[in-house]
Amino acid sequence: MTTSRLLLLAGSLLASNLLPAPAQAQLNPVALARLASNGAMLAANAQKSAPIQRIDPTFWWVGMKNPKLQLLVRGAGIGSSKVSLKYDGVTLDGVQPLENPNYLLVNLTISPSAKPGQLALEFKGKKTVRYNYELRARTTPQDPTKVQGVSTADFVYLLMPDRFANGDPKNDYIKGMKAPAVARDSMYSRHGGDLKGIADHFDYLRQLGVTAIWPTPIVENNQPKASYHGYALTDFYAVDPRFGSNAEYVSFVQQAHQQGLKVVHDVVLNHMGTQGYLFQDAPAKDWFHQWPAFTRSNFRDAAFNDPYVSGFDRKQFGEGWFDTSMADLNQSNPLVSTYLIQNFIWWVEYTGLDAYRVDTYTYSDRKFLMDWGKAVLDEYPKLGMFAEAWVQGTQQQAYFARNILPEVDGFKSNMPAVLDFQSQYAINEALTKDAGWTEGINKLYYTLQADWLYEDPMRNVVFLDNHDMSRFYSVIGEDFAKYKMGLAWLLTTRGIPQLYYGTEVLMKNFSDPDGKVREDFPGGWAGDKKNLFTNRTGQEAEAFNYVSKLANYRKTHPALHAGKYQHFIPNEGVYTYFRYSDAGTVMVMMNSNKDEKTVDMARFAERLNGFSSGTEVTTDTALPNLKTVKLPGRTAWVVELKK
Amino acid sequence: MTTSRLLLLAGSLLASNLLPAPAQAQLNPVALARLASNGAMLAANAQKSAPIQRIDPTFWWVGMKNPKLQLLVRGAGIGSSKVSLKYDGVTLDGVQPLENPNYLLVNLTISPSAKPGQLALEFKGKKTVRYNYELRARTTPQDPTKVQGVSTADFVYLLMPDRFANGDPKNDYIKGMKAPAVARDSMYSRHGGDLKGIADHFDYLRQLGVTAIWPTPIVENNQPKASYHGYALTDFYAVDPRFGSNAEYVSFVQQAHQQGLKVVHDVVLNHMGTQGYLFQDAPAKDWFHQWPAFTRSNFRDAAFNDPYVSGFDRKQFGEGWFDTSMADLNQSNPLVSTYLIQNFIWWVEYTGLDAYRVDTYTYSDRKFLMDWGKAVLDEYPKLGMFAEAWVQGTQQQAYFARNILPEVDGFKSNMPAVLDFQSQYAINEALTKDAGWTEGINKLYYTLQADWLYEDPMRNVVFLDNHDMSRFYSVIGEDFAKYKMGLAWLLTTRGIPQLYYGTEVLMKNFSDPDGKVREDFPGGWAGDKKNLFTNRTGQEAEAFNYVSKLANYRKTHPALHAGKYQHFIPNEGVYTYFRYSDAGTVMVMMNSNKDEKTVDMARFAERLNGFSSGTEVTTDTALPNLKTVKLPGRTAWVVELKK
Repeated sequence: MTTSRLLLLAGSLLASNLLPAPAQAQLNPVALARLASNGAMLAANAQKSAPIQRIDPTFWWVGMKNPKLQLLVRGAGIGSSKVSLKYDGVTLDGVQPLENPNYLLVNLTISPSAKPGQLALEFKGKKTVRYNYELRARTTPQDPTKVQGVSTADFVYLLMPDRFANGDPKNDYIKGMKAPAVARDSMYSRHGGDLKGIADHFDYLRQLGVTAIWPTPIVENNQPKASYHGYALTDFYAVDPRFGSNAEYVSFVQQAHQQGLKVVHDVVLNHMGTQGYLFQDAPAKDWFHQWPAFTRSNFRDAAFNDPYVSGFDRKQFGEGWFDTSMADLNQSNPLVSTYLIQNFIWWVEYTGLDAYRVDTYTYSDRKFLMDWGKAVLDEYPKLGMFAEAWVQGTQQQAYFARNILPEVDGFKSNMPAVLDFQSQYAINEALTKDAGWTEGINKLYYTLQADWLYEDPMRNVVFLDNHDMSRFYSVIGEDFAKYKMGLAWLLTTRGIPQLYYGTEVLMKNFSDPDGKVREDFPGGWAGDKKNLFTNRTGQEAEAFNYVSKLANYRKTHPALHAGKYQHFIPNEGVYTYFRYSDAGTVMVMMNSNKDEKTVDMARFAERLNGFSSGTEVTTDTALPNLKTVKLPGRTAWVVELKK
Repeated sequence: MTTSRLLLLAGSLLASNLLPAPAQAQLNPVALARLASNGAMLAANAQKSAPIQRIDPTFWWVGMKNPKLQLLVRGAGIGSSKVSLKYDGVTLDGVQPLENPNYLLVNLTISPSAKPGQLALEFKGKKTVRYNYELRARTTPQDPTKVQGVSTADFVYLLMPDRFANGDPKNDYIKGMKAPAVARDSMYSRHGGDLKGIADHFDYLRQLGVTAIWPTPIVENNQPKASYHGYALTDFYAVDPRFGSNAEYVSFVQQAHQQGLKVVHDVVLNHMGTQGYLFQDAPAKDWFHQWPAFTRSNFRDAAFNDPYVSGFDRKQFGEGWFDTSMADLNQSNPLVSTYLIQNFIWWVEYTGLDAYRVDTYTYSDRKFLMDWGKAVLDEYPKLGMFAEAWVQGTQQQAYFARNILPEVDGFKSNMPAVLDFQSQYAINEALTKDAGWTEGINKLYYTLQADWLYEDPMRNVVFLDNHDMSRFYSVIGEDFAKYKMGLAWLLTTRGIPQLYYGTEVLMKNFSDPDGKVREDFPGGWAGDKKNLFTNRTGQEAEAFNYVSKLANYRKTHPALHAGKYQHFIPNEGVYTYFRYSDAGTVMVMMNSNKDEKTVDMARFAERLNGFSSGTEVTTDTALPNLKTVKLPGRTAWVVELKK
């Protein structure tokens, strides 16, 4: 479980053993240079308006549903300024100094009548400073290719941008940034992959049948170690320049949309990198959970809603740090909450991204989670959203999604869906353990049966593995027959399927001990000896073709994604389920036994009714007789039924 | 899981392979004789009033909350009779003939003003028949020793009356009954135990610290095979004469109450024995689930509320038979529902029993379960009630108890509590598997954490094993250190502890393959070489004393049962929890490791606050220093904290 993730953090664990005390504000020329590249207008203003270093959000829009905006202004000594503005439709509601004199909060109301333009802010302190804050025109409401959401029709491809493909070697190392140069031989160093590398392989992904890309976080992680993974952001408003500029990310999303690919943006609400200015020069101590000595989270989400929890365990879970390099945000501070809410509205409007994947969802403050979810979805009802809740048991997983439960312990999740760890446990068991009353493939049956707790289990994202886990192909003992069963399940079960990059070409390895589950995709770097983007042979080719065939079949056969799900209790290790709608019926039969099973199909009459034959779609094999079938051992059949 | 139970049914499985077709009414002299002994008044009436064989309920009371009463009258050709009555306060609402002409339903309203007495019913058919139906005065409302309920202060002892002690050898074999004479060398035959055998050992049970007795069903099971277990009743209104008469059972309950012992009455709502007159001469075909050929239940409660269930699986679960010898009652028939509701009100008023344990709860019709629970609890709000829901996962178990859920799939359980199979799985794993992130003792932590789904998890009945399972002592490999840990857990965790007979003297064996988990209690039969009621030596004595000491301590220390529960996340295989109230604080520490663990107690400060020392109560060992403790391997400490 979380131990895998801990191992994968090992690089950063080495970085420090103690909580770095917030340091004084330091003007960072690298950061400024980067801002210049990522938000030209802002940088221009910042230069004009010294000592104002920045204002978050870095710009905003007129015409948002929520007319309120809280600007976090940063600049040496800015906290004692008097603020004034004059802009049609914008009113200054007030200012709020913070513990740190280098910050000032400015509260605005932007009326529906306000027009885009430069909002001139005047800060009167020892000297008077002016700052033109940009109010843009919105683009998401009128553009149907933006903020499309994700649905069961999608097939999501999870990749790590640093490890997928290096499209622009020029951005591999940015001078002045804290991580050393790329070192592809180290799992914890940067390897040089980037946004362009992904975009260069949109064709590959489309060929595979992918409809949505989920890169691990693309925001700045200016940490000295293990910064490649992206989960220790150091600037809420900047793309990591080693992946590309802000403008390049906007264009990446646009390109993806043009090619029929959606973009899932991976976000962390719970913590940020300790090297970020917001931590190094914190607005106030209470923006972060402070401990007398470094205290790690116990990683037990169970403490979130345990009726018997101790104060000790609950505090350590929610306020303990995920890692020495990841400062735990105090979201119960309403200012932090507002900062985060605005940031995640900003990214949507700025880029038109389609969905958020929310990292470490369970670790956050309960009220904050509800406020954040509501605010973001109020603004973007079509935005897709699914959370990581790496928990034990469906009741616990459902607690963190929209569910049929009343508010429990002060929390009622408004998160539309979760990454379905429970079915991940189950499919792995189904393929590695013999069927018992509750074991093996029967666990899969029991796990799906528990779906009654969700508001809509179809929205959940199903997967075989991810970047924090041993790779699926290794877990199943590199057994190709089991591999096909797993993939057949992934692409036909309920929910939105997600594939971890490289699984389609049999990439392998275990998370323990060396983290080699995040290796480079072969062919992503110029000079790679092996290029699996273009040259696949043998089983790698067979694997790719299997996934591609099924994913593309799924795409064009709505019964497989929009259809209802009905299953039959597994019998002698054979699990049979149906996806059906007016558009057709697909029957899936999984034989978890080593040996062939003869199945009397009479039991399935209510679904076979009207169908007399079928075609197994992964092999194009005709099945003329559906009265009795002989299902080979370790095989999943995906059968399109025919009248 | 259910496979164990199936093995334990093996004897009756042999009895027949096909559903016996309902036969014509047969006057059974044995049954009449038995009724004569069990309900003298009724039998007298029955003889006077031939052809009326019986009326169910066999008698009733005035002053019930629900004034309605539906009599099921049985007699050759009675169905076409015209009925009349004249009795102050009783009105005849109507009659209803049934498919079988030998039955007639008579619907009455008994007004609050009606007095006890003989209600003269007149049936006019070919000839006129009179029947004096007895209306008694109630005794439960005015007697506080009756219908006491069960609570967390109780310690329940589950036993099989046929296997516990033979107090009355005269009733071992009743001439004319279908089972052969006793055969103690066969696990599937009767052994001769009875109610008197239990009552003879009330002292033993009190010494052990027991406060409530749960015998497996004591109702008539006049089946040719495996009738000893009691789950195939053949008469809803009669105690099995091999256990005693109806009157003896009433007196048994009274005696128990006088000695401070409550009685839990084990009931089956789902099915009845195929040899019962109600099945052999069924009122109508639709009183039972009928199948073209014998069809066994699939035993998958998951089908009850599976959002993806097939009609096939749901029907087989709910309507399939539990066994060839157990006819599945069609409770969706309102007449069957009323028959069952009245019967289970009858037993409470008749005997003053304290609680119902409801067998195979999940197999019944959902509307019926709600109606039954409501009707019985409306009449007896203090009645204890807990159900067998042998299911997978807390969400599923909680679904069958009172919970925080809305109605799901047409069902909202009103069952106050369940037998807690989830914690049984967990304690067994805690004692047989090393601690892992979620495994071993951590499973215990996770299982209790899920309690948030229940309306009140404290009402759940916790246990180490039961008559359908391998015995606890065998499951833990006859490891006495683990044994003590298990018992310490049982008697200190949340809920109502239940012990399976003989566990206190280390009775053992596995349910598979021979069902030897239902062996005779040594000393229960005259001439037994070993008598563990009176002569215990060595580890058997040590075990008994351990349980007795802890159970009696529990009884007198309300913190242990009425106290709140707080636990701390297990650390390195050590699980620590507290029971606390104004009456004191008891700390339990379980070390699941083989080796001693040194525990820094600072983590528990919020509960140790104010306490400086303690006493381990099972060994009377003083613990003068609670700053750091050295907890021996495979040990549970139960520590009373001292100021």
